[in-house]
Amino acid sequence: MRMRKKHWTEQELQTNPYIIKQATEKKGNWFAYFENDNDIYVEIGCGKGNFIIENAKRYTNINFIALERQASVIAVAARKVENLPNLALVCDNAALLSDLFEKGEIKRIYLNFSDPWPKKGHAKRRLTHRTFLQSYRDVLGEKGEVFFKTDNKQLFEFSLNEFCADKWELSHVCFDLHNSEYAEQNIMTEYEQKFSEKGMSIYRLEARYNNMKI
Amino acid sequence: MRMRKKHWTEQELQTNPYIIKQATEKKGNWFAYFENDNDIYVEIGCGKGNFIIENAKRYTNINFIALERQASVIAVAARKVENLPNLALVCDNAALLSDLFEKGEIKRIYLNFSDPWPKKGHAKRRLTHRTFLQSYRDVLGEKGEVFFKTDNKQLFEFSLNEFCADKWELSHVCFDLHNSEYAEQNIMTEYEQKFSEKGMSIYRLEARYNNMKI
Repeated sequence: MRMRKKHWTEQELQTNPYIIKQATEKKGNWFAYFENDNDIYVEIGCGKGNFIIENAKRYTNINFIALERQASVIAVAARKVENLPNLALVCDNAALLSDLFEKGEIKRIYLNFSDPWPKKGHAKRRLTHRTFLQSYRDVLGEKGEVFFKTDNKQLFEFSLNEFCADKWELSHVCFDLHNSEYAEQNIMTEYEQKFSEKGMSIYRLEARYNNMKI
Repeated sequence: MRMRKKHWTEQELQTNPYIIKQATEKKGNWFAYFENDNDIYVEIGCGKGNFIIENAKRYTNINFIALERQASVIAVAARKVENLPNLALVCDNAALLSDLFEKGEIKRIYLNFSDPWPKKGHAKRRLTHRTFLQSYRDVLGEKGEVFFKTDNKQLFEFSLNEFCADKWELSHVCFDLHNSEYAEQNIMTEYEQKFSEKGMSIYRLEARYNNMKI
């Protein structure tokens, strides 16, 4: 998602208490930051934040961290947050996960409507490319999870193969989320809301990696 | 596929040398039957036989066995076979695999355009239901394979989940076979030919099970 830079972006990033400054210094200390030992779920690419904010409201016994590399976008998300001690926003890149988290520090990663990078030569930029999956394993715990949804059929096909090649266990594979048993508890992103109103299918899967296996 | 019974069906079944009579007596003796120790690939539900006959012609160093439960259909397939010592046809049911084969006797199973049994209550009849997958494991070798293709999106979605739940390793998952890198070497079934002429997508996957793993 690209947005014009808003004049208040910089100030929001500096002053909003939900935006974490010098986030890499929190590596290994996120439980201390949240002042509890609840599981930590991370969304990579949170956009304007609907998904993660709704999750934080609904599941108060989970800590949520949202990553978004575009300052002007995460600033919009930050403005919406009120009274959610279990939520933190980080303006950073998915490529830097291991600078942000110790191995085992996070329990689940959400990838929602990631950029499909349709050109074959750009496959390595897709957030489900196996080099990213390996980087997720480096920060996830013993039975780490990735929850992935997309409207892009080619990206979903590619992702299935990448997860399988990297030996993740898949479940709840779904080709039409909004007409499935998972619809009721599904929390939509802004993009998903617009897209599903046009009647298009949303693909979804859950992937787990047993970090302990030999 | 349902066909009217042809008057010559019974005679074809009795006299065609490619149709195996008392096939259960071959259990454990298929390599002797083929007079070699080449890998054995089995198609479950061969219909009129195009797929398996073309395979037998192209891959003479593989033994092929085609199962089809409808006598009038397999009789049509049998009539087409000429000079293929690496092909055998069996008029039998997928549910009886372990009556036909010893564990490890076959290397690969093909499931092509199996009946989708769309009603939820009929899920157990789908040839990718986990009880069938378990029965495939009982006859496949150490690194047994199932190659599956279908035009039915719901069956493909169901099958992905079943294979994953039963711990098969998936690869070459493809949502549009005829416009993919696999198109060139793909051998079509009669049904597939008709269907693809209408421009519909064919789904495909390969599943492997490591019978030796703990």
